[in-house]
Amino acid sequence: MPHPVTFWFEFASTYSYLSAMRIDAEAEKRGVTVTWRPFLLGPIFNAQGWKTSPFNIYPAKGENMWRDLERRSAKYGLPFNRPAPDDPREFPQHSVLAARCALAALHEDWGKDFCRSVYTAQFSQGHDISDVLTLDRLIETAGGISQIVLFSAHARATKDELRANVDAAQSLGLYGAPSFTVGKELFWGDDRLEDALDWAVNTD
Amino acid sequence: MPHPVTFWFEFASTYSYLSAMRIDAEAEKRGVTVTWRPFLLGPIFNAQGWKTSPFNIYPAKGENMWRDLERRSAKYGLPFNRPAPDDPREFPQHSVLAARCALAALHEDWGKDFCRSVYTAQFSQGHDISDVLTLDRLIETAGGISQIVLFSAHARATKDELRANVDAAQSLGLYGAPSFTVGKELFWGDDRLEDALDWAVNTD
Repeated sequence: MPHPVTFWFEFASTYSYLSAMRIDAEAEKRGVTVTWRPFLLGPIFNAQGWKTSPFNIYPAKGENMWRDLERRSAKYGLPFNRPAPDDPREFPQHSVLAARCALAALHEDWGKDFCRSVYTAQFSQGHDISDVLTLDRLIETAGGISQIVLFSAHARATKDELRANVDAAQSLGLYGAPSFTVGKELFWGDDRLEDALDWAVNTD
Repeated sequence: MPHPVTFWFEFASTYSYLSAMRIDAEAEKRGVTVTWRPFLLGPIFNAQGWKTSPFNIYPAKGENMWRDLERRSAKYGLPFNRPAPDDPREFPQHSVLAARCALAALHEDWGKDFCRSVYTAQFSQGHDISDVLTLDRLIETAGGISQIVLFSAHARATKDELRANVDAAQSLGLYGAPSFTVGKELFWGDDRLEDALDWAVNTD
C-alpha cells in the first residue's frame, strides 16, 4: 500500500496552480491517495522578514518565474495568462477567503473541482479571487450552494482550521508552495510532485 | 540543427553538481552542443543584498535543500555526502580559484572531467576546493599539468574572463545556479536541465 500524500497549496501561488491541475492524474497512475490542504504563505514569508512574494522582491527571479510558468503551462497543456504588470489584481492576490471556501468545499465531492476553478479563474481568465462574487460563481459552477459555503467560510471553526494548517505547515518545515509531505518527508515545488508520489509508493 | 546551449555553473552550488554530472549524457541523447561557463554567485547574491547563500539565510529552505540533494543524488546514482554542519569547510565553499582553473582547463579536452572532479571532491569526498593542493591533485588526475593550469588561473586574462562571465550572467538575468541559456531564453535549476535541452531541439 502506498503511503498517503498531503498536497499543501496556496491559491496565490503560481506553481501551486500547475500542481493542482496535475496531481490527481499523477496520483491515480500510482494508486496514491492525496489529501489537499490549503494554507497561506503570507505568515510564513512574514516570519522570514518578507512583506510580499520573493518573486516581487527579486525582480530577476520574478521575471523568470513568469516566463517559466508560460513554458511549463504549455508543456502540460494548461491555459495560462500572465497578469498584466499594471493590473489592479496584483500578484500575489489575496487568497484568504478562497482558502476558507476551499476548506468548506473540500468536504464535498466537488471540492477539488472548485479549487482547480479558482486557479483557472486567476491564472487563465484574469479574475480577482478575493472578490466574493467571483467565488460565489465558482462555487455554484463546481456544484455547491454558494450561500452555504460562504457561510461556512466565515465560521470560526473554518478560520481556526486555516490557521491550524499554517501552523502545521510551519512545523513540518514548509517554506514555499506547493509542497508535498509523506510522513515527515518534505518535497517542495511543482517539479517535485512526481518525486513525492514515487516516494509514497517506494518507501516502506 | 539544435541550438547551442550554455551551461552556467558555480562550483559552490549543490544543484550545479547534479547538472555537471548529468548534462553531457542528456545533451548527447539530443545532439545538443553545450558550452560550459563557470561564474560566481557571490556578486549576484550581493547585488540582491545577500551576504551568503539563501540556503544559509533561510534555515527551513536550507534544511530541505540538503535533504533534497540526498534524494536527487540517489535518484541519479550520484555519490553525495552532506558536509557536517560544524565542518570548517563551510557551505558555500570559496570557489573563485576553482572557477579560474576551470576557465583554463576548459580549453583542454580533459576540462570537463576536471570540473566534475571538483564537484565530486566537494560534495562526495568532503574536500576543500579552495585549497590549492586539492586543485593541484584534481588537475593532474584529470590529465592536466598543474603548474601550467595554476599559472594560467592567476593570469590577468583569466581573472578578467571570470569577471566577464559574471557580468554576462547578470545581463542575461541569471539569479541562481545552475542556469541554462538558449539564446536569450533562460532556464534556472537542475530540474530545468531537460527543458532547456528540449528547447534547443524544438525551437526554430
